[in-house]
Amino acid sequence: MLGLMQSQQLLISSLIDFAERHHGDAEIVSRRVEGDIHRYTYKDVAARARRVANALDGLKLGFSDRVATLAWNGYRHLELYFGVSGSGRVLHTLNPRLHPDQIVWIANHAEDTVLCFDMSFLPIVQAIHSRCGTVKTFVAMCDADKLPADSGIPGLVSYEAWIGAQSATYKWPSFDENSASSMCYTSGTTGNPKAALYSHRSTMLHAWAGALPDALCMSARDTVLPVVPMFHVNAWGLPYSAAMTGAKLVFPGPAMDGKSIFELIENEKVSFAAGVPTVWQMMLGHMQAGGLRFSTLKRTVIGGSACPPAMITSFNDDYGVEVLHAWGMTEMSPLGTVCTLKNKHLALSPAEKMKVRLKQGRGIFGVEMKIVDDEGKELPWDGKAYGDLLVKGPWIISEYYKGEGGAPLVDGWFPTGDVATIDPDGYMQITDRSKDVIKSGGEWISSIDVENIAMAHPAVAMAACIGMKHPKWDERPIIAVVKKPGAEVTRDDLIKFYDGKTAKWQIPDDVVFVDAIPLGGTGKMQKSKLREQLADYKLPDA
Amino acid sequence: MLGLMQSQQLLISSLIDFAERHHGDAEIVSRRVEGDIHRYTYKDVAARARRVANALDGLKLGFSDRVATLAWNGYRHLELYFGVSGSGRVLHTLNPRLHPDQIVWIANHAEDTVLCFDMSFLPIVQAIHSRCGTVKTFVAMCDADKLPADSGIPGLVSYEAWIGAQSATYKWPSFDENSASSMCYTSGTTGNPKAALYSHRSTMLHAWAGALPDALCMSARDTVLPVVPMFHVNAWGLPYSAAMTGAKLVFPGPAMDGKSIFELIENEKVSFAAGVPTVWQMMLGHMQAGGLRFSTLKRTVIGGSACPPAMITSFNDDYGVEVLHAWGMTEMSPLGTVCTLKNKHLALSPAEKMKVRLKQGRGIFGVEMKIVDDEGKELPWDGKAYGDLLVKGPWIISEYYKGEGGAPLVDGWFPTGDVATIDPDGYMQITDRSKDVIKSGGEWISSIDVENIAMAHPAVAMAACIGMKHPKWDERPIIAVVKKPGAEVTRDDLIKFYDGKTAKWQIPDDVVFVDAIPLGGTGKMQKSKLREQLADYKLPDA
Repeated sequence: MLGLMQSQQLLISSLIDFAERHHGDAEIVSRRVEGDIHRYTYKDVAARARRVANALDGLKLGFSDRVATLAWNGYRHLELYFGVSGSGRVLHTLNPRLHPDQIVWIANHAEDTVLCFDMSFLPIVQAIHSRCGTVKTFVAMCDADKLPADSGIPGLVSYEAWIGAQSATYKWPSFDENSASSMCYTSGTTGNPKAALYSHRSTMLHAWAGALPDALCMSARDTVLPVVPMFHVNAWGLPYSAAMTGAKLVFPGPAMDGKSIFELIENEKVSFAAGVPTVWQMMLGHMQAGGLRFSTLKRTVIGGSACPPAMITSFNDDYGVEVLHAWGMTEMSPLGTVCTLKNKHLALSPAEKMKVRLKQGRGIFGVEMKIVDDEGKELPWDGKAYGDLLVKGPWIISEYYKGEGGAPLVDGWFPTGDVATIDPDGYMQITDRSKDVIKSGGEWISSIDVENIAMAHPAVAMAACIGMKHPKWDERPIIAVVKKPGAEVTRDDLIKFYDGKTAKWQIPDDVVFVDAIPLGGTGKMQKSKLREQLADYKLPDA
Repeated sequence: MLGLMQSQQLLISSLIDFAERHHGDAEIVSRRVEGDIHRYTYKDVAARARRVANALDGLKLGFSDRVATLAWNGYRHLELYFGVSGSGRVLHTLNPRLHPDQIVWIANHAEDTVLCFDMSFLPIVQAIHSRCGTVKTFVAMCDADKLPADSGIPGLVSYEAWIGAQSATYKWPSFDENSASSMCYTSGTTGNPKAALYSHRSTMLHAWAGALPDALCMSARDTVLPVVPMFHVNAWGLPYSAAMTGAKLVFPGPAMDGKSIFELIENEKVSFAAGVPTVWQMMLGHMQAGGLRFSTLKRTVIGGSACPPAMITSFNDDYGVEVLHAWGMTEMSPLGTVCTLKNKHLALSPAEKMKVRLKQGRGIFGVEMKIVDDEGKELPWDGKAYGDLLVKGPWIISEYYKGEGGAPLVDGWFPTGDVATIDPDGYMQITDRSKDVIKSGGEWISSIDVENIAMAHPAVAMAACIGMKHPKWDERPIIAVVKKPGAEVTRDDLIKFYDGKTAKWQIPDDVVFVDAIPLGGTGKMQKSKLREQLADYKLPDA
């Protein structure tokens, strides 16, 4: 027997309708590419999103056609979020930090039909437009009078002329909530980039879950600064959760430097900000240099990569800002865990609370987690056992767009590629990447743990631990080390340095001194390249 | 094109699975019928809910079969919430405050197959069991040794013996999320009671929406006391939102007196409580008498009927507790609006904030609202125009169980039966019931407004405004008044008392002095009965 409740598809258009009707005068403030501050309201976003929808109809775009953006966080990007998905098209947020060849590959793979770009990225589009065969319309996200006369891009139109010609009246269509709404490609360190294809349903459930007090805790009393880019997994869903709750939004545009971000926070009375550690590092540096203080910021969520403990401590102790450590993936829309405390932690000492806060956090409702060993056997949640982390839930992918990468699920679970522990309270902590963990004699050794000890040695500038094939133990860890300029340390010194700091069998078998460790574009160590460089290396006893 | 996200039905069983896994040691504390305090954890709830499911399987109950409860707020009731719905049956929460004949009518109409009852209600069940033809199994929610030897109820079994014989292992079935999960009958002041039939989907979406910071704001740091009965629209969804967030739950059992409730709040460190005004009145009275203070209570949500302003002020000013005014209906799962402030209100004076707080609140995302005039034309959100309030959304009924009451929706909208204003910020305020509003010359007059003025006269103890047929104006208001003992006031005095307090055409045409105004079981004025009593009344100029 079915329940007798109203049947209503969960659609992204309902978010902007709601924000217009219930929070019409709540502000959206953007620092523009031009450097000035633009401000308007949800009422304006809604009207202009409807113009976008009419403009797309005018181009005769079909249902699910892809509309790409190459843009910073700003109000026009927000209008595209709602206008594109709301009208039944798929918003494809391209990452402008990729190599132009990769952008071309991705745009062709996605079969993008329209490309809207911020003027910062005009040079990229000038360089690639002729190779983006499926794109019929290029839109420069600028005022009509800012459009360059001879961009060399055929038919280039300014965003304002494009939507200005359209009516602000539009009836959002209704359709299956499982329809695709947006897509985002993973950076793809190996093989071709692969895309997560989100649905209206997954986006809406994620928006509800993300706004909960145990996740990002968003309300109509918040002023939210998403520093995390809107081209990076929908800015962690903040544009959707903000519209759902009527929170004021503040967008930084291209100005991510410490001074600009700090000024936005102060001038716009931001209560909540979200971003990756590097941005906060710059901002804290700017504040320390100038002896500055926050007057309104209450909490910040940090994700994208592990947050250094010193940063959590500094926000908390020096500035009175609560830091929420978070973990997610492009394949997870992206929220998986957020590190919020429980009732039982409230009476703990600040130091004990900090121990909890350093973990990646608890799974939010809607995300199931498990850790498994090499045989796929589930491991206990004791905070010690670590294994491959798998996840399941309605905002986690079932497969990649166009079936790239084959069938990713294992018995219905998505393997995250991370190795983690989970403690009895459900707090997850990532200990390594699955491909980096060293499997020695049936036991796993965290490469990150091995590196952290080496990094604590005064002569070590950088350290990378990788596994080397061993006839008896399968793999044994070695550590590649870059010495600090002018500093000296021998192999034996460093091996001895591990004494008492870890179990004997987790101590690396050897030290290899190198001039540099290969780094990727985002500053992460590329261990695959390091392994190639050390292809001829042999373990001492192998 | 469909998105490529995992397909997962939204099912109530996932809530208790999650609570067990992520918040296994969070407490559930119950005052039992016996008066003692029982405490255990979500881990225990989950295991015992699985025993319930096995017990229902053992009775060969089919999918969607109805399992009724006649019970207070307590741990066994919570187990039934998850065990019954989780296993695919429909939880039917009977209201023990109804007349036994009405309970019989409802149990037969619902075709309940099992009836689980608290020992407080043994006399009711003894009186009605022979007339509940579809009920095959009666379960007394008590320990095995508390089962009366000769209850007269054939096959009566104790809950503990019933589930104790079962395994705690059970695999929750998966099925269509639109399947019925639970049902609740409206009190039905006219005609037969009608039932809202909730689905797993509607319950889950409501649980997410209800836990948001702008609704009930529930987290793993909360200790929640639902004083609102679990037989009254699922205790406003609190059991579901609590499991979703891992909040500690505290249940009052049958002890709703001020002393018992206050003690529970203090002893269990309750941070959030929910209930109807009468309960809080008793508690505040107890506190005032004893000069008591709260040490942990931060906020309370008040709904069910309009909250007296003095109560909101007292909680806020005298006790530092935030009061959230809320409005909903059985037909709405029940949450419709909650009165939380916006960014723009934060700088207001306490008096101005209080003005906002007195309204029923803003629609939460997922509930669409509109107000319409007699012709169904939508009225502006200006805080002045008032009309029939209609609502729409995924946790609002489309029709009643078995089609009772015909097709309730009007163009897809559910008419609430309330008359309301909505201000430009979306705050809704109920001004009257649709059936009580007086329609005079095409304009509407709020019976409540007319009554409130009369009630301000020192000689008036109680006043009820009703509309009387009028040849020219369709209807004109008159006011029926009960004088205070020993007080005197004439018709003309009272009519004159309205001067300057309202528009001339809203002043009642006549005053009728009566000895008493008929009241219903819950203390509400029964204007239909008053109209019957005044059937022979003629307006002065009609």
